[in-house]
Amino acid sequence: MANLDLTLLLSALSDPTRRAVVERLTHGPAAIKELAAPFDMALPSFLKHIDALERAGLLTSWKEGRQRFCRLNRLSLDPVSDWLADQQGRVRPYDREGMEMPEGDSPAPDADSAHDANPPPPNRRNPRRALP
Amino acid sequence: MANLDLTLLLSALSDPTRRAVVERLTHGPAAIKELAAPFDMALPSFLKHIDALERAGLLTSWKEGRQRFCRLNRLSLDPVSDWLADQQGRVRPYDREGMEMPEGDSPAPDADSAHDANPPPPNRRNPRRALP
Repeated sequence: MANLDLTLLLSALSDPTRRAVVERLTHGPAAIKELAAPFDMALPSFLKHIDALERAGLLTSWKEGRQRFCRLNRLSLDPVSDWLADQQGRVRPYDREGMEMPEGDSPAPDADSAHDANPPPPNRRNPRRALP
Repeated sequence: MANLDLTLLLSALSDPTRRAVVERLTHGPAAIKELAAPFDMALPSFLKHIDALERAGLLTSWKEGRQRFCRLNRLSLDPVSDWLADQQGRVRPYDREGMEMPEGDSPAPDADSAHDANPPPPNRRNPRRALP
């Protein structure tokens, strides 16, 4: 996955209207008219969002009679989740705690359940161990 | 996770320079000077990228003496991967095939290994079954 594609995908997903369209399309294909209905937006503005999603490869559109329909290209989300999983898998434990761990210390066993929003004070998790 | 936060996070990650900074910080905290080194960019421009990452909650920065350092807030990526997993878990099989499946048909057993880029013709996967 080229970096440019990841940029296109993340830019497309960074807009709440476009994310709402993706969410709707996970339930199945839909006509543009139906997709646009929940938004207080002129149709040309809405179509720009559809075009951004299509350029990023997130959806495919086609015409049936006088209506245009869209479906989600579900696997097109994979490069984003793969990139995120790479980062999440590589991050070192002290980044979750906001502190540098002394060499030789191992992460607390419950480090995976820690949450950045309310980290306990470092000393609770990694008390300075007495030297032998 | 508010929709606004998801917008901030995805906008922050939609830039290749900012993604490269996140990738670097998965290996551990770093000084701004070190983070900026690989980029052919004036320092004030680079600092705007750091600010965008910090506003989105992706990193924390602090001063030590005359230097500013950054560390990744690793769990801050979770809302994005959670949102993606929700979409990927909900998507219906026919969205991978680009066709509507006739009612009563079940997805082919190898649907999970299908790839949007080169989908086989629908008839190979779901031949029209003879009625009893």
